[in-house]
Amino acid sequence: MIDVNNLFKDDYINKEVVVCGWIRNHRRQKDFGFIDFNDGTCFKNLQIVYDKNLNDFEKIQKLHIGSSIKVKGKIIKSEGSGQEIEMKLLDYTLLGDCPEDYPIQPKRHTREFLREQAYLRTRTNLFGAVFRVRSIAAYAIHKFFQDRGYVYFHAPIITASDCEGAGEMFQITTLDMDRIAKDGKVDYTKDFFGKKASLTVSGQLQAETFALSYKKVYTFGPTFRAENSNTKTHASEFWMIEPEIAFCDLDGDMDIMEDMLKFVVKYVLDNCPQEMEFFDKYVENGLLKKLNKLINSKFVRVDHEEVISILKKANVNWEFKPEYGEDIAREHEKYITEYFDGPVFIKNWPKDIKAFYMKQNDDGKTVAAVDLEVPGAGELMGGSQREENYEKLLTRINELNMDPADFDWYLNLRKFGGCIHSGFGMGFERLLIYLTGVDNIRDVIPYPRTPGNCDY
Amino acid sequence: MIDVNNLFKDDYINKEVVVCGWIRNHRRQKDFGFIDFNDGTCFKNLQIVYDKNLNDFEKIQKLHIGSSIKVKGKIIKSEGSGQEIEMKLLDYTLLGDCPEDYPIQPKRHTREFLREQAYLRTRTNLFGAVFRVRSIAAYAIHKFFQDRGYVYFHAPIITASDCEGAGEMFQITTLDMDRIAKDGKVDYTKDFFGKKASLTVSGQLQAETFALSYKKVYTFGPTFRAENSNTKTHASEFWMIEPEIAFCDLDGDMDIMEDMLKFVVKYVLDNCPQEMEFFDKYVENGLLKKLNKLINSKFVRVDHEEVISILKKANVNWEFKPEYGEDIAREHEKYITEYFDGPVFIKNWPKDIKAFYMKQNDDGKTVAAVDLEVPGAGELMGGSQREENYEKLLTRINELNMDPADFDWYLNLRKFGGCIHSGFGMGFERLLIYLTGVDNIRDVIPYPRTPGNCDY
Repeated sequence: MIDVNNLFKDDYINKEVVVCGWIRNHRRQKDFGFIDFNDGTCFKNLQIVYDKNLNDFEKIQKLHIGSSIKVKGKIIKSEGSGQEIEMKLLDYTLLGDCPEDYPIQPKRHTREFLREQAYLRTRTNLFGAVFRVRSIAAYAIHKFFQDRGYVYFHAPIITASDCEGAGEMFQITTLDMDRIAKDGKVDYTKDFFGKKASLTVSGQLQAETFALSYKKVYTFGPTFRAENSNTKTHASEFWMIEPEIAFCDLDGDMDIMEDMLKFVVKYVLDNCPQEMEFFDKYVENGLLKKLNKLINSKFVRVDHEEVISILKKANVNWEFKPEYGEDIAREHEKYITEYFDGPVFIKNWPKDIKAFYMKQNDDGKTVAAVDLEVPGAGELMGGSQREENYEKLLTRINELNMDPADFDWYLNLRKFGGCIHSGFGMGFERLLIYLTGVDNIRDVIPYPRTPGNCDY
Repeated sequence: MIDVNNLFKDDYINKEVVVCGWIRNHRRQKDFGFIDFNDGTCFKNLQIVYDKNLNDFEKIQKLHIGSSIKVKGKIIKSEGSGQEIEMKLLDYTLLGDCPEDYPIQPKRHTREFLREQAYLRTRTNLFGAVFRVRSIAAYAIHKFFQDRGYVYFHAPIITASDCEGAGEMFQITTLDMDRIAKDGKVDYTKDFFGKKASLTVSGQLQAETFALSYKKVYTFGPTFRAENSNTKTHASEFWMIEPEIAFCDLDGDMDIMEDMLKFVVKYVLDNCPQEMEFFDKYVENGLLKKLNKLINSKFVRVDHEEVISILKKANVNWEFKPEYGEDIAREHEKYITEYFDGPVFIKNWPKDIKAFYMKQNDDGKTVAAVDLEVPGAGELMGGSQREENYEKLLTRINELNMDPADFDWYLNLRKFGGCIHSGFGMGFERLLIYLTGVDNIRDVIPYPRTPGNCDY
């Protein structure tokens, strides 16, 4: 059976076709009617027109919004504006009816309401577009890396190590908690893995083992944070892309970050033109301009120290005062992308606010880390060159009171043919927020998990 | 910097190039030497030849196996057999040394030994090939579905529902177990999601919600089973592909299963010729023949009932006696694929041994389920048409003592424009075992998780 998408792409004028799909809207007139028909294969509805000459005209007029139908009809040039083709109905079958109290009606629903109908919200224009873009963007990421010879690496989800030392991890277990309460003691040797295990927060450390075999690798999988924050940008379960490249320094890393982002944005613009136009019109005015500008810009590269100097010189009443050696706030990120009028790589960050595995620069104060800041969204990716020196890495692990025994294999990578290498991480949902203009992470994840929410 | 893969693919004869990589082997002669050099971008080593005329000939001779080096040299036609090009060394830099007790030496290591060196095993021919094939096969799956307009759906990993009703799930929690032991009680309202939550065993039910919006969708993500089995084919964490298609019956489902498998096998054969040759030669004799035969065969479709009749008629002393209405065993699967001399879809299974969501056939005894059996591997995929009838589905849920309230949204899909739809699931590692001939699931997952094992 043909997809509606093909009817729009190829020439079907004057041909009879059969398609199955759903009624998005139904406008009834005395002698004729219009059905907005959508089979999910493209953003646009196919308009179906029918008139009194049809045998079961009266039954057709009673078809409900939301119903699934099979239709036979002739594709004709549309006389109405806004669409090039429509279907003149010849015959139909009702496949699945839909009651009048169906929650998704052809009117504007709030995103909050639709969040509560998450299993139906993809039937609306907005969410239909969001999750198609999610799919296309995911494929663009795979395509970018595979075309360039990267190996896709499935990092383990269940882990006994804590990459970031961040702490906020979900524990996983097969122990019976009621039993623990009853017995008054926990015995991890009885747990499924014989020890305490958690959900991964990052696949980077493991990806490094693959990079030192395959030179160029990337992960793309779910990661987890048990952080109790209810903001528009935090979810407990989200997807991350973590490329890792051997024989690559921080400059090379930034080249890849820039190339990848431009490729993905362009791929989505090329492959989801209707969805992107919709977002531009109804979600974020100027979205297309923003994205096209990004594709054609050269990203600026500037040291963290210089950024602080610029912020300090700025004639702005900061809520958070910028300081050398410290992190920067949302308002600073915004200012810097406006200052340079485009995407900015901020590099060489103070060592004490960054992770243990980052390459220590010769100045003794900074590490070869980088954040990419983009206009309108702030930080989109973060990366670093990794410390390849065994002694320096070990010293840092000890300084931070981490246990070197937990990192023996990671340290050994520096001993067995180690080399400079770099990588970065991009939160997939952060990219989607940037691409669609939809500003709540709950609206770009099919079934979002946040504190207190685990439905479907 | 160029990849070694490009040196083999394009014409670099008489050109000077610089590459970085690792020493896989080093054969030293009195006046010259050979280095087997590999940068991870392809299966083949680049042979580097050097002789006494080089200034630091003696230092070069001391280079250790496993070290990372940067080399400058001229690409020349090889005089030796077995390779078309080699590099005449002009200059080199040692990037990272490697001690003599490096575990990966140029000899045959057992797979068991390498499993214990999982973070280094990708540096061997066997595992280097396995995980490149894993990457290419993953991409092939995305390509197959994306080229055909499917939407890639990220099913939730953390879930409060249990799709299969199978029970064996990992619980996830942020509750402090020592606290539970001390307090003598568990309070799930204090847990992160305010209720008991687990790791998903399947994304199918959620994928159905997307299929009833987008018509054609697929998942590709990790799934989990807390099953305490130590076999060659069981892992606690594995990746699954679960396509779901609206307006598609069981026959259409089988068409897609067959097309997909043939596409993926062909894509891997075309894109990993060296790796596949290696497997054919050293892992499973006849592998290439098996796979090429699959691509060119028409899969047989036969009812479960007929399969039992064939098995009963067979002149075989079965360990498990085949019975109508019951499941079939490994020995039966093997017999059936040999009987039909090719892949076999076994369809219309006894209702009582299959899942609640499968479409009940008119005979009252069977459901529209299908398993694909392939020669040499047994069951590779399983699928079904889903029950689209609200009343029948509800009745079945009640019969099985499941709580309809847990499935309200799933049931509602049958009320709000429901339609016939079908889908299937394929364990990605099962496919990889079939593709590579490597017969232990622990050897096709980068960092496998099994009972008692959660390293890296």
